[in-house]
Amino acid sequence: MAERIVIIGGVAAGMSAAAKARRTNRQVEIVVYEKSGYVSYGSCGFPYFIKGEIPRLEKLFARSPEQFAKDGIQVHTHHEVVAIHSSSQTVEVVKLPSAERFTDHYDHLIVATGGHVPRPPIPGVALPGVFSLRAVEDALAIKNWLETRPVRHAVILGAGYLGLEMAEALRAHGAHVSIVEQQPQVLPGFDEDIAALAQAAVEKNGVDVLLNTSVTSFIGEHLLRDLTGRVVAMLEKNQEAAEALSTRRQAAGLSVREAVLSHGTIPADIVILAAGGRPNVALASTAGIALGATGAIAVDSGQRTNLPSIYAAGAAAEAYHRLLDKPIYMPTATVANKQGRVAGANAAGGQAVFPGIVGTSAVKVFDLSLAQAGLTEKQAAAAGYHVNSASVVSTSRAAYMPGNVPVVVKLVYEASSQRLLGAQMAGDVCVAKRIDIVATALQAGWCIKELTELDLSYSPPFAPVWDPLLTAANIAHR
Amino acid sequence: MAERIVIIGGVAAGMSAAAKARRTNRQVEIVVYEKSGYVSYGSCGFPYFIKGEIPRLEKLFARSPEQFAKDGIQVHTHHEVVAIHSSSQTVEVVKLPSAERFTDHYDHLIVATGGHVPRPPIPGVALPGVFSLRAVEDALAIKNWLETRPVRHAVILGAGYLGLEMAEALRAHGAHVSIVEQQPQVLPGFDEDIAALAQAAVEKNGVDVLLNTSVTSFIGEHLLRDLTGRVVAMLEKNQEAAEALSTRRQAAGLSVREAVLSHGTIPADIVILAAGGRPNVALASTAGIALGATGAIAVDSGQRTNLPSIYAAGAAAEAYHRLLDKPIYMPTATVANKQGRVAGANAAGGQAVFPGIVGTSAVKVFDLSLAQAGLTEKQAAAAGYHVNSASVVSTSRAAYMPGNVPVVVKLVYEASSQRLLGAQMAGDVCVAKRIDIVATALQAGWCIKELTELDLSYSPPFAPVWDPLLTAANIAHR
Repeated sequence: MAERIVIIGGVAAGMSAAAKARRTNRQVEIVVYEKSGYVSYGSCGFPYFIKGEIPRLEKLFARSPEQFAKDGIQVHTHHEVVAIHSSSQTVEVVKLPSAERFTDHYDHLIVATGGHVPRPPIPGVALPGVFSLRAVEDALAIKNWLETRPVRHAVILGAGYLGLEMAEALRAHGAHVSIVEQQPQVLPGFDEDIAALAQAAVEKNGVDVLLNTSVTSFIGEHLLRDLTGRVVAMLEKNQEAAEALSTRRQAAGLSVREAVLSHGTIPADIVILAAGGRPNVALASTAGIALGATGAIAVDSGQRTNLPSIYAAGAAAEAYHRLLDKPIYMPTATVANKQGRVAGANAAGGQAVFPGIVGTSAVKVFDLSLAQAGLTEKQAAAAGYHVNSASVVSTSRAAYMPGNVPVVVKLVYEASSQRLLGAQMAGDVCVAKRIDIVATALQAGWCIKELTELDLSYSPPFAPVWDPLLTAANIAHR
Repeated sequence: MAERIVIIGGVAAGMSAAAKARRTNRQVEIVVYEKSGYVSYGSCGFPYFIKGEIPRLEKLFARSPEQFAKDGIQVHTHHEVVAIHSSSQTVEVVKLPSAERFTDHYDHLIVATGGHVPRPPIPGVALPGVFSLRAVEDALAIKNWLETRPVRHAVILGAGYLGLEMAEALRAHGAHVSIVEQQPQVLPGFDEDIAALAQAAVEKNGVDVLLNTSVTSFIGEHLLRDLTGRVVAMLEKNQEAAEALSTRRQAAGLSVREAVLSHGTIPADIVILAAGGRPNVALASTAGIALGATGAIAVDSGQRTNLPSIYAAGAAAEAYHRLLDKPIYMPTATVANKQGRVAGANAAGGQAVFPGIVGTSAVKVFDLSLAQAGLTEKQAAAAGYHVNSASVVSTSRAAYMPGNVPVVVKLVYEASSQRLLGAQMAGDVCVAKRIDIVATALQAGWCIKELTELDLSYSPPFAPVWDPLLTAANIAHR
């Protein structure tokens, strides 16, 4: 009898696993349980769908359940796995919305339960108009909200990649957008000097950025019907200020509404929660699957968990970082796709290895593109390196060409050895591929000197004759 | 007394050498002799100046002779060095246009005489309206020609980078453009399959491409005043056909004009010679400076020639190719700038090394960008490799994003070892930086497997989640 692979979760990691398992083994049974109504979609496209740049949601779906069925992959949407019993190699499945419950057997199990954006435990977070954005249903709800009422004011919690992308999406709907970020900078994964360029880019496009600021409560129309008829985000610059305000409010006997009127509030016809993605691990953890230090599922290079025949992949799992030589939590689409393939191959009898990451990522913020690979100065210092950096402001094309935009390159390297540790870039869209040069050099374990020897392409429409990366490397090499 | 560095030629290599020599040594005397009236310009910008994309020629000049003078670099334009006497360490210089002649002494000499596009030895090649494009004077003459008379028909000899760029420039002036190429493909430095994409791009933009075709003569208005009043390029499909036509013409007693009327001619209000750049080596060769197998000046990794205290750099010199492990002739701006720096540093007492190249280059052809690094299939086979290749047609952005264009990646690798030998790409402008990933991998000496492990950046505006390069590597790795 054929072996049976059960996959929990049908988005990037899960469906990559399913497809790769099938390519690896034509005989094995493959079953996917997906809680939501959709599988195999590109959630990175949600901001562009909400913006209106992608006209139809269907474009985001790589393959339908019917297409998977033709490959002998059974996809069950609206099926939530509520328990894993590793001793009996079974899962308990609840069929939604009927709540019909059944047990399924697996020979190999792949946990691809993804991640979520936590709802902060603050008053009003459950109000209508306060959205997180993870599943297709979220994207549709946000789009519907924007299309069915006037949205003049939008508040985004979190100035990471998703927060900045959503700022662009909501500006395209004509909303006034405020981004509220607890950290002292946008893009907390970047060094401050590069992050400041992203902040300038969103501000130039009419977005308010409130740093060092937390939302302490959302106040809905039931409280403020006479005032705004909508959600209001109440802000505090920091914990101390929040407590002081709270104390003051109570001392003064002010109602919440009175406090809102007299203190830092911003109106919000919509709120997007975009701060700090976390892995969905409750199911795995309850079943005895070990989590790593990051809180995500610990896996080996074959995506195996601590329990026999159970794999994990994607935003539920950790990812090995080559430079840090330890697992980190990096819930990106590339990691999900690659880990999914490895898990699928191995579950189907293959011998695949996830090679790890060097922390490469990129984001487009209105007209500015930013990218990074390896470690930032902050991260490198935290990892115990004594670091130097070299920064250069150059141009995207030969200096004399029209259509030029500034390109900033910052290299981070170990002071003593000049070992390359990372880079950050800001400029035109091609910085996303220019950062990949650094990702390649990091994988090769290079020092600055080897960067200076690179034979990079040149023509006036593509770069200056000394590519900004070479210029930065030459400065570092002096 | 301070040592004296004399530099022959003041364009990319020469002025890079001068600037680097000064940074290396504040005391040394630095003298540059430049035959033309201009120094320190970006000749790669000429097609964009002629096109009209760069409005003023001055934009192409990085620094003026006066700016160099402030750094103690004496720049003499309109000064042609006509002889090098290595035994006495002197050069003979002719001041133009006076023809005043004098001798100068050098302690270190840098030959940066550049290259030229040869005028083919065919009748009529000296006619007005037949241009090559190498010096500022050429660019100005072409621009002036275009602006002072109607140019309805243009003929370009050579379908390399310059030829295709000039096709775009001349189309922008409304001319009907014909490119005549002796080889059976455009971009002879690429494999045929990728070159075909460039051909399609120029043809889509109304350019006629005549392959396997030579121009056998240019016929001027003195011959054809009554017919066209302009230069006519007379074409032959190949040598045999040309000889046959010539024989037929003579046998039939036809005049040239009659032959033109009855055989393959194309009208031309302007002709651009853009086939096959060659090094300017007559001066060096006469002085006993050894040339390499390519016909350019042979240099070691410090840009030293065979003669003591004489260096060479740029389009006059060879460049060491890391993969071929031998010098090749690659007269590009990046090589000129890098070799110039090395020659300048060493002439001034430094210890610089030119690390060699991996054959990286890129060109924009209307809306299509093409890039290559390493060896093509043809070149690899010629170098004795048993090669495989893997090609993929992917997209420039996530499949669901608007503004997507096809991106083609072709990887070339050794069949037995899967050692990466090269890549060619065609797509949007970012292929110029995507090729640099391959240039980096080639420098690192990687095999296909290591390419498949790359952690490349992803966001929907920048690439598919599996970058086209990864997809190609995965195909090769199967």
